Amino acid sequence: MVRYTKKDFPVSNVRRFLEPGPIVLVSSCLKGEMNIMTMGWHMIMEFEPSLIGCYIWTENHTFSMIRKSRECVFNVPTVEIADKVVGIGNCSGRDVDKFKQFNLTPLTGQAVKAPLIQECYANFECKLVDSSLIKKYSLFVFEVVKAHVATSPKFPKTIHYRGDGLFMISGPTVKKWRPLFRPEML
Amino acid sequence: MVRYTKKDFPVSNVRRFLEPGPIVLVSSCLKGEMNIMTMGWHMIMEFEPSLIGCYIWTENHTFSMIRKSRECVFNVPTVEIADKVVGIGNCSGRDVDKFKQFNLTPLTGQAVKAPLIQECYANFECKLVDSSLIKKYSLFVFEVVKAHVATSPKFPKTIHYRGDGLFMISGPTVKKWRPLFRPEML
Repeated sequence: MVRYTKKDFPVSNVRRFLEPGPIVLVSSCLKGEMNIMTMGWHMIMEFEPSLIGCYIWTENHTFSMIRKSRECVFNVPTVEIADKVVGIGNCSGRDVDKFKQFNLTPLTGQAVKAPLIQECYANFECKLVDSSLIKKYSLFVFEVVKAHVATSPKFPKTIHYRGDGLFMISGPTVKKWRPLFRPEML
Repeated sequence: MVRYTKKDFPVSNVRRFLEPGPIVLVSSCLKGEMNIMTMGWHMIMEFEPSLIGCYIWTENHTFSMIRKSRECVFNVPTVEIADKVVGIGNCSGRDVDKFKQFNLTPLTGQAVKAPLIQECYANFECKLVDSSLIKKYSLFVFEVVKAHVATSPKFPKTIHYRGDGLFMISGPTVKKWRPLFRPEML
């Protein structure tokens, strides 16, 4: 099992790990009950405040847990635990305790009651800041209020969903186009 | 230069190419003027209708062009034209004709006036279906009304932005986790 050592990370910079489009594990807690869902539909919406938008299907057990608790953690898993990520996405927190079932370790957050998943590369503690789009679009708008990121490796091997049960594994990180950027765009 | 042969693709399935999180080129047309922007902040919002949400900064020339024309095309570029993608993101349509500057070929769409970029792997013709979130979040909600996807390769080498001028290139597509899916989840 991977054990990442993490440190605080600027919340305005979480795009570095979310904008490439990885599958994330969203953990939540309501009245002492913890849950995890696998999520692919999310996007960065702002640097400061650090906003994330995401789609949560009404049928997901997580849907009501987060709507009521107004908190969650975005956890970024890496390829080493891909089997757990898929398993989590194919069962319901109504039926199983996913932390127990998938042998994952819940850690206490600093700003939210939702648990951090120790075995993930990064953990972003989030507060629900806009629930007005849930009814129409199942769209939750979160602010990242605290971020924890592994000190190594610099570029994690994340998993990206292609649909139909297929995943793309993140490939090499390339610096050669950096000189083409205007300084203010970096 | 890559020349993709494309065929019609079901709009409800565009998630296969967008959910992995690639940088896209968004093309637009207003009163005969064409433009292209480089975009990383987008997400799938629904299968049917095929909805995409995306963030467009108010300062982008594309912002007003799409708000007025209410149309665009999401084009998925591959690593072969990464230098053009970066160049497009680092200049403004106010100053240059990006199709000419970057030697890209505009093709006529079937459902929108915005041009398709021939050199991209996939082209998704989009109509703006909800402009109510633009003021608060710069969030545009589009419906994909027509999709064109290259017949080969099956899995394109897309580019994913990590911030700071760094790109991740999509790696291998893996099928080994597919048996872990419940049939209705595929």
